[in-house]
Amino acid sequence: MIIMMNAPAADQVRRVQEKIAQFGLESHLLSSPDRIIITAAGDLEAVNPEQFERLPGVERVIPVATPFKLASRQFRGDATEVAVGAARFGGPAVPVIAGPCAVESYDQVRETALAVKAAGAAMLRGGAYKPRTSPYSFQGLEEEGLKILAAVGRETGLPVVSEVTDPRAVELAAAHLDMLQVGARNMQNYVLLKEVARANKPILLKRSPAATVEEWLMAAEYILAGGNPNVVLCERGIRTFETGTRYTLDINAIPLVKLLSHLPVMADPSHGTGKWKLVGPVAKAALAAGADGLMLEVHPCPEEAMSDGSQSLTVNNFRQLMKDLAVLSAALGRGESPATAGGK
Amino acid sequence: MIIMMNAPAADQVRRVQEKIAQFGLESHLLSSPDRIIITAAGDLEAVNPEQFERLPGVERVIPVATPFKLASRQFRGDATEVAVGAARFGGPAVPVIAGPCAVESYDQVRETALAVKAAGAAMLRGGAYKPRTSPYSFQGLEEEGLKILAAVGRETGLPVVSEVTDPRAVELAAAHLDMLQVGARNMQNYVLLKEVARANKPILLKRSPAATVEEWLMAAEYILAGGNPNVVLCERGIRTFETGTRYTLDINAIPLVKLLSHLPVMADPSHGTGKWKLVGPVAKAALAAGADGLMLEVHPCPEEAMSDGSQSLTVNNFRQLMKDLAVLSAALGRGESPATAGGK
Amino acid sequence: MIIMMNAPAADQVRRVQEKIAQFGLESHLLSSPDRIIITAAGDLEAVNPEQFERLPGVERVIPVATPFKLASRQFRGDATEVAVGAARFGGPAVPVIAGPCAVESYDQVRETALAVKAAGAAMLRGGAYKPRTSPYSFQGLEEEGLKILAAVGRETGLPVVSEVTDPRAVELAAAHLDMLQVGARNMQNYVLLKEVARANKPILLKRSPAATVEEWLMAAEYILAGGNPNVVLCERGIRTFETGTRYTLDINAIPLVKLLSHLPVMADPSHGTGKWKLVGPVAKAALAAGADGLMLEVHPCPEEAMSDGSQSLTVNNFRQLMKDLAVLSAALGRGESPATAGGK
Amino acid sequence: MIIMMNAPAADQVRRVQEKIAQFGLESHLLSSPDRIIITAAGDLEAVNPEQFERLPGVERVIPVATPFKLASRQFRGDATEVAVGAARFGGPAVPVIAGPCAVESYDQVRETALAVKAAGAAMLRGGAYKPRTSPYSFQGLEEEGLKILAAVGRETGLPVVSEVTDPRAVELAAAHLDMLQVGARNMQNYVLLKEVARANKPILLKRSPAATVEEWLMAAEYILAGGNPNVVLCERGIRTFETGTRYTLDINAIPLVKLLSHLPVMADPSHGTGKWKLVGPVAKAALAAGADGLMLEVHPCPEEAMSDGSQSLTVNNFRQLMKDLAVLSAALGRGESPATAGGK
Repeated sequence: MIIMMNAPAADQVRRVQEKIAQFGLESHLLSSPDRIIITAAGDLEAVNPEQFERLPGVERVIPVATPFKLASRQFRGDATEVAVGAARFGGPAVPVIAGPCAVESYDQVRETALAVKAAGAAMLRGGAYKPRTSPYSFQGLEEEGLKILAAVGRETGLPVVSEVTDPRAVELAAAHLDMLQVGARNMQNYVLLKEVARANKPILLKRSPAATVEEWLMAAEYILAGGNPNVVLCERGIRTFETGTRYTLDINAIPLVKLLSHLPVMADPSHGTGKWKLVGPVAKAALAAGADGLMLEVHPCPEEAMSDGSQSLTVNNFRQLMKDLAVLSAALGRGESPATAGGK
Repeated sequence: MIIMMNAPAADQVRRVQEKIAQFGLESHLLSSPDRIIITAAGDLEAVNPEQFERLPGVERVIPVATPFKLASRQFRGDATEVAVGAARFGGPAVPVIAGPCAVESYDQVRETALAVKAAGAAMLRGGAYKPRTSPYSFQGLEEEGLKILAAVGRETGLPVVSEVTDPRAVELAAAHLDMLQVGARNMQNYVLLKEVARANKPILLKRSPAATVEEWLMAAEYILAGGNPNVVLCERGIRTFETGTRYTLDINAIPLVKLLSHLPVMADPSHGTGKWKLVGPVAKAALAAGADGLMLEVHPCPEEAMSDGSQSLTVNNFRQLMKDLAVLSAALGRGESPATAGGK
Repeated sequence: MIIMMNAPAADQVRRVQEKIAQFGLESHLLSSPDRIIITAAGDLEAVNPEQFERLPGVERVIPVATPFKLASRQFRGDATEVAVGAARFGGPAVPVIAGPCAVESYDQVRETALAVKAAGAAMLRGGAYKPRTSPYSFQGLEEEGLKILAAVGRETGLPVVSEVTDPRAVELAAAHLDMLQVGARNMQNYVLLKEVARANKPILLKRSPAATVEEWLMAAEYILAGGNPNVVLCERGIRTFETGTRYTLDINAIPLVKLLSHLPVMADPSHGTGKWKLVGPVAKAALAAGADGLMLEVHPCPEEAMSDGSQSLTVNNFRQLMKDLAVLSAALGRGESPATAGGK
Repeated sequence: MIIMMNAPAADQVRRVQEKIAQFGLESHLLSSPDRIIITAAGDLEAVNPEQFERLPGVERVIPVATPFKLASRQFRGDATEVAVGAARFGGPAVPVIAGPCAVESYDQVRETALAVKAAGAAMLRGGAYKPRTSPYSFQGLEEEGLKILAAVGRETGLPVVSEVTDPRAVELAAAHLDMLQVGARNMQNYVLLKEVARANKPILLKRSPAATVEEWLMAAEYILAGGNPNVVLCERGIRTFETGTRYTLDINAIPLVKLLSHLPVMADPSHGTGKWKLVGPVAKAALAAGADGLMLEVHPCPEEAMSDGSQSLTVNNFRQLMKDLAVLSAALGRGESPATAGGK
């Protein structure tokens, strides 16, 4: 830990050094023309930098150890592999999760599931609880939606994932789903994170559009610290000034997460771009950047996804994209191609 | 509603016009060199622009009516006044809510409460449930913290406000508090918004550091639509590229909210700057921009707030700031000065 | 300077220490569980952190000294006062610079100048060289515009300021103007900064919408280092995700600049909001935050500024705002009110 | 063009309709509960939306035609191919431009040039005029640097590109270089854009870290409208809140530019990430997203690029990356691999 002091009084310096000693840390002082710097070394686990930040004369405290432990490469050097049914995230293969944005009906989900499975999808997605910006928008079929997903999952053999938004619904959702998704808006909903940590199912943790990679890994730390080691991270675009796309998919974040953490990281180009015409190129980009999986919105009704405004692919778009991804995956040496990853 | 189509086929145009007719809207078509535009007028309440965005050939749909209704100026022209005990938000006076970041002990809260009340604070704040980025940081005294706040509130006559993070704890919190705060990280936690809408207490809705003003008003709409008309908005800084301050307090948002909505809007310069030395100037700025209230972090232990790294004011800083705000408030014609607003 | 190394090899550590010694600095080493930290103290003026950042094993280098010297509070403790004719920036008074966005004609400028002077403006502004996003938009009257400004300045006794965009036009502009403006888009146009540093006129340096406060002060450092001590900084809004306003005026930046630098800092609420209805409240906010001046767009043709889309005030809006600012200025103890600042 | 009016007066509506008629456009009026909308169709080329935005009662004007013409897909449907010596941008191949950040000496540039050419680079880059945040940092060898580049270019047969920052130096630079680069900080330096438009050399136009894709294309429009059709766009990262990387490379921008424009677009993962360990994965991502070229910083002195803090690749890193890119390029059907694109 490094403590910077701006032209401090002698007693202010003494207080900082005393506090360092209280924690059983070794301190060292050095002065530059306009500042005094005190370094503290030793076991920093128990030390909260804020306790030093608040001391008089202190300008800035730089914690040296990474704030996340269980999620860090230091804690675990080799990549974690998370299995959801036959799908494996973090291994050589790159499973693709596909399905409609929202669960509308059994037929719609079944039709989509059969189509995406035939195209090589490894898992089925669909929203049962929809966090909507407007209270007047469709809020999802809720429990009925979970049942539809579970039924179609059994029927098609595809593991199913869906978002949970209410800590009171986690247990119910876990009974119907193979994987629980914590959505972007809830990435820092710590009450929900603690609840899913208790669920005996793998968690898909989407990045908040306003979270740094470090904050994202801290959210994962909540789940890991809560006793659930099966976390898959998903980059889905951050909020920037660019208005030509709905979000800016942070491609840098994929290799950065791999540098900092042992957890698998996937990408969601549908939300990350907001425009179906950009989904294909960005999906390929994410795969090339090292993504351990892809999440794609596929809409059963072809025509409806033909507009620029929509982020959903048609079944035909998806089928073609899966072919391209398979070729790319092979070229990248990602073992079996997405088109068969986790197949039956 | 305006629908833009990029070089569409004749039948694509026909489908859009048919769909407009289905909603009983009047449509009009006009073509420009590189586009066709179809406008739809009439009762747009029931129309979801997405339904058109998904039609083939559609490039973009521009909803003309504002997405929020109950929170809009169109719905209610005159300003809403929200009363919390003797404090009134949205009226001439500008109440100041002050207190420690976290409730640590009865003595700490009591000492701070007496000090800020003497300096003119109208309400007491303190965190009982702390959303922390790290699972290893202090998470708050929870129910014990609520009891401390309630006791000190009774003793000092100051209404108390604290953040709720768990929908399951809303009822308990409402029993102890005079006002419930929805924190920035939970602004789009719709499950929580629906729960506080059912609580019979005024709500302090903080803006998410990643939310546009429109999304913020949509979050308020959830509470209003849920049957709770007593919502006070609080700007607390948005996330930008600037690293010299913790957040960027969006001063523009204060007059913008007043232009768009009838709800009271206050500011939190402590979180909005992250540096106590900037809190005073930015508090004055928010008042001058038209804020209906201020929320300030005040720490009982003077020395601890003397560091640049801290966003808390000492009691002395606070006392001086309240004097300055009183003068400013008078000059701005905001009726009684903050230093007495809601006081007795 | 602090050098962090991530599990480095012994010889990598040695190389860093040797390099520190080469600069005649004192180094100290300390190790934490997952890192080694080397601190370097002494005369850091001549040291470029990059030289260390590039050494093998080095993860991060934290320069301790501020990168700007002449612009820093350390270099000069008391506030710099910049005089432009009778207007003084950085003193007790708060001069207001007003005028049209672009110089269109002698009559338009003269009419505006007389109106804003009567209302209390201390300086006249108007664009002769207009940086336009589109090559097809009006690019300004250029030299003809400068002559109009100079003539109206002489006639009204108002010092004039206008933007320069071409290093080849600086000398010409300096011959006609009392103050040269470097616009937001050119804040990091170092060729232009070096040229205006040579001009014998005060410089108004606008902040780039994408620059941190530190980068802004580094741009000022170019002018100061070039021999021109008369720099006035102007915050005009940064680029954020918010689309409800054209830019987000960074109110935090005003007290932050005063903390870090001795240079005067003013605000431009017209560009900072992009909506004339927000200009008044935000102008008051900037004044309350400690701004040393205000720049306001005033359009001579009343009706044209009545639209929400416009950021220009009408002469009547401006007259009323100046009255409000005068009251506020007095309450803030900013000596003579804007309405008379710089008035002969 | 669409003009929205918020509860306007009858005469305000009339004025808008009259102005539309003046431009010989056909107008149509429709009213919704809270607004009146007037649409204008016809030849909008000559119409500046601002002229309507300023009319009383007007809330917002939505231009329907894209603001850029020559750079748009509407203007030219097929992709533009820009040739620089043997390198072709916008064709099947994906040329790689490599070289040191700054030109330090003849030997350094020569050594790097020979190494990157052997590895398959199609062009050589190096900075002669360095825009530096600090006036105290090395500003480049300027003319001497241009001569070194030209000499090494002749010697190795690699076309050379370097940044120009001063309109007065464009002619000189054009005499020495095969391609002129307009750097990110100067993307909206219109004086420079007009000057390079007159140069008889292809232009590499980097995106400003604060520019939207539309503003970037508008900057290209300046060069095209100035008579220079040979523009290659380069995405180099935008400024966001993320601090884990120096910039956020906007991967979405690559397919978005291809959707909107016929100009070639390349990517610079070195600046886009700021960390050499992320350069490889992000370079592959850009290629997979459809980039027409890559720009990579390669440092001749191996050890110096071994730090996380550096964005430069070593020659060995580069050699390996070129092999990977060649495989990927083939899988993507980008004709000849980067490793040979534009080769002798």
